[in-house]
Amino acid sequence: MSVRRLPEGADEPDRVAVEEPLEIRIEGRPVAVTMRTPGHDEELALGFCLSEGLRPARARLPGDLAANTVEVDAPGFDPEGLQRSFYTSSSCGVCGKGALEAIAVAADRVESGLRVPFAVVSGLPELLRAAQPSFDRTGGIHATGLFTPQGGLLCAREDVGRHNAMDKVIGWAFREGRLPLADLVLCVSGRLSFELVQKAAVAGCPVLVAVGAPSSLAVELAADRGITLCGFVRDGRANVYTEPWRIVP
Amino acid sequence: MSVRRLPEGADEPDRVAVEEPLEIRIEGRPVAVTMRTPGHDEELALGFCLSEGLRPARARLPGDLAANTVEVDAPGFDPEGLQRSFYTSSSCGVCGKGALEAIAVAADRVESGLRVPFAVVSGLPELLRAAQPSFDRTGGIHATGLFTPQGGLLCAREDVGRHNAMDKVIGWAFREGRLPLADLVLCVSGRLSFELVQKAAVAGCPVLVAVGAPSSLAVELAADRGITLCGFVRDGRANVYTEPWRIVP
Repeated sequence: MSVRRLPEGADEPDRVAVEEPLEIRIEGRPVAVTMRTPGHDEELALGFCLSEGLRPARARLPGDLAANTVEVDAPGFDPEGLQRSFYTSSSCGVCGKGALEAIAVAADRVESGLRVPFAVVSGLPELLRAAQPSFDRTGGIHATGLFTPQGGLLCAREDVGRHNAMDKVIGWAFREGRLPLADLVLCVSGRLSFELVQKAAVAGCPVLVAVGAPSSLAVELAADRGITLCGFVRDGRANVYTEPWRIVP
Repeated sequence: MSVRRLPEGADEPDRVAVEEPLEIRIEGRPVAVTMRTPGHDEELALGFCLSEGLRPARARLPGDLAANTVEVDAPGFDPEGLQRSFYTSSSCGVCGKGALEAIAVAADRVESGLRVPFAVVSGLPELLRAAQPSFDRTGGIHATGLFTPQGGLLCAREDVGRHNAMDKVIGWAFREGRLPLADLVLCVSGRLSFELVQKAAVAGCPVLVAVGAPSSLAVELAADRGITLCGFVRDGRANVYTEPWRIVP
């Protein structure tokens, strides 16, 4: 594609982050469409299902890749149950006080005794950035990385949707038999919403690191689930909002 | 709330952007829950309904504000029609080629002959930032601003969700009798997704300006609807992806 660069006024070729719809089907039923960056679609579908509290067996792409569809096998899948889950998370009667209970997918408290050196935490955003080939080209894409407590990168995924990038990483971990992520650290390139903390909680990850700011409900859910939440991790600094004992100075 | 600042290790009071669920009811029926920053909830609900192709009359909050619910009056509202609309936008059979037709809400092409000086466009992000009181406190909140072609700010709204910030501005314009936005400019603080271009198209706005990068589908939809899309508007520069004739050097 072509873009006009101002103030010069020159028309030049340019690249932007690819965004396309993906339909997720479970046991043959269409259950959701997400706007995502193509690639790692099976992992995305598996991570999405796990985050919704489902138990997928595997995901596969149809023969016609242009269909933008992914099929998930989940024997025993109960559409009624999913409907209840979606109802709970997207159209229940909600109120300030009970919102967390009403909208959060059930997940056990993360009891991991993992501790991570601050020096490792503060270096994760740069390691994640180095693993983001698309960002350099388009400047418009989120990333999630999964790291060891020593700062070793296990998996990095990019997407125009921040929730999709994390779903892809969790789907990768599921396929690799690495769930729950009790001894690992997740790092995201942007801000921390409630939704991202929920995904980390369901994956059993004790430490969640972000370059950007968390929201109030993100902090509230992290506190409730026992997750260590680090925000504004940049320039050698960090804010630790919950369970700060896991970050060793 | 309190936060531990590293590397010093001091625990200090801190503020984060507030995120809470809001249930939107139309003619008494719950139709959606959005995670939003409280405030201007009636405008948010009106903008949401307009973006979905509905014709709201007014929105009001119930007596109990803690309920996090907003009621929309839309005489003649057809739940079946909304279901079809949601089906179309969130669970239709989609494919690469037909995605735009399948997921986009119907909107006429924006035929406005508006032209805006580049000097005005390049100054909008700073004007928007100056109108963002919460960002300075929390560093974690999106904004949308509505401007005249001379750079006069008409309305600015903040939210943890970028789509909510734009819904609030469009809802404000609806209440003020300013739709369609044929002679005005929208500016957003972050990246441009498909969804934001769709909202601008339904509101009839000819020029959409962003500090960040657009996605491929955002550019595609802007081209289809005749909207001028400006991205990476920062440091005295801009990329114009579509309909560049509206930006006067």
